[in-house]
Amino acid sequence: MRKLYIGNKNYSSWSMRPWILMKQAGIPFEEVKVRFDSFEADSQFKKTIGALNPVAKVPVLADGDLVVWDTLAIAEYLAETFPEKQLWPRAAADRARARSICAEMHSGLGSLRSLCPMNIEASLADVGARLLKDNPGLQADLDRVVQMWSGLLDAHGGPLLFGGFSIADSYFAPVGTRIKTYGLPVPPAISAYIERVQALPGVKAWVDDALAEKDFVAFDEPYRTAR
Amino acid sequence: MRKLYIGNKNYSSWSMRPWILMKQAGIPFEEVKVRFDSFEADSQFKKTIGALNPVAKVPVLADGDLVVWDTLAIAEYLAETFPEKQLWPRAAADRARARSICAEMHSGLGSLRSLCPMNIEASLADVGARLLKDNPGLQADLDRVVQMWSGLLDAHGGPLLFGGFSIADSYFAPVGTRIKTYGLPVPPAISAYIERVQALPGVKAWVDDALAEKDFVAFDEPYRTAR
Ligand SMILES: N[C@@H](CCC(=O)N[C@@H](CS)C(=O)NCC(=O)O)C(=O)O
Ligand SMILES: N[C@@H](CCC(=O)N[C@@H](CS)C(=O)NCC(=O)O)C(=O)O
Repeated sequence: MRKLYIGNKNYSSWSMRPWILMKQAGIPFEEVKVRFDSFEADSQFKKTIGALNPVAKVPVLADGDLVVWDTLAIAEYLAETFPEKQLWPRAAADRARARSICAEMHSGLGSLRSLCPMNIEASLADVGARLLKDNPGLQADLDRVVQMWSGLLDAHGGPLLFGGFSIADSYFAPVGTRIKTYGLPVPPAISAYIERVQALPGVKAWVDDALAEKDFVAFDEPYRTAR
Repeated sequence: MRKLYIGNKNYSSWSMRPWILMKQAGIPFEEVKVRFDSFEADSQFKKTIGALNPVAKVPVLADGDLVVWDTLAIAEYLAETFPEKQLWPRAAADRARARSICAEMHSGLGSLRSLCPMNIEASLADVGARLLKDNPGLQADLDRVVQMWSGLLDAHGGPLLFGGFSIADSYFAPVGTRIKTYGLPVPPAISAYIERVQALPGVKAWVDDALAEKDFVAFDEPYRTAR
């Protein structure tokens, strides 16, 4: 059975992507959660994940002997292994666009990622308002996300970025949870898209697990001091 | 005709990847070089590339109406469009591994990327020695690259990472030029792999153009003050 190694569900945005992708697409897998005790070399987390993957980060997919790391590589591997699931959009041009925006998320949107780390159970609207005021880069990242999603929702008529569910929606689902956690202001059509993604059974299952997790990790909490 | 928008050949490591990939695979394209005048919003570079791609970074591939940005998305698009070129390794497990290491390069190896920016024509061995001494993260990145390449060269018996030429070699070619520019110490088998990649006609063509370019860009030169 395919195993997906993940971190804490409340915090690990990269782990969330392939997990909701597989759940939503109905690809069976066993979840192996490796708690974020710390990211020091001698942590249980680093020792466990480092034994699988030299980068020692989650997510990692183990499929028999084959170990695949990094979300983008896992997504491509799944798309190739399950062609009938159409994990990428069907039309070649849409697929190219979907890959461009996923790669953009993978290496870009740095202010959003570093200033607003995922924290599903927290409500940090006051922090979000302050961060936006102090960091023009964060507003620029938010503007970019709004422009990207609006353009795609308009072009394809919704309900999701490329019409039906695709890797692109799984890739941006943790951006939706951040916009909610930090109360970042977005137009109504964008909030509605975020809510549609949150309502997908695969996404809802992750969020419910994250809310039930109740495992406070201080080094993933730049803003709260306790929960 | 397919157009590839690139930056300065001496400096733009991301542009180098799809360019050498297409040259080496014999995929015809027209090169459009957009000089790095600056990365300010009102620069000619940002205005030209921003008109094609909201991220306003190179490389960008324009194939008729379709605009694909980001190296990884371009590589996947080319692999899909030219299946007969086998741009990814043939075996599914090798392909998954190749994608894992390319994605790792895309979002990781941060010390190597930020401390040793590509600069093909420069010889900065003294700088490299100092950087290595002062930055444990740089040594860790170098160790990781050596471990990755050694493992793959051993597993496949060379001459390249997965036997024959693949996207993975194009992805790591700019790492090879950095190791040379900064004189970073690597084992002989690794130097030999770097030299084999540099000798590929598609790579040599880029390096020759970079050497002939003679266009000093101060903001891409943390170490030299002139050429
Ligand atoms: N580019 C990687 C990023 C993975 C990543 O940064 N994962 C985090 C958890 S969300 C991690 O494992 N961090 C451990 C560390 O930084 O040492 C991917 O797409 O999978
Ligand atoms: N993740 C992107 C990175 C592209 C990138 O950073 N390109 C540089 C030139 S090598 C650039 O255009 N920089 C302009 C800027 O940073 O504003 C890719 O893989 O294509």
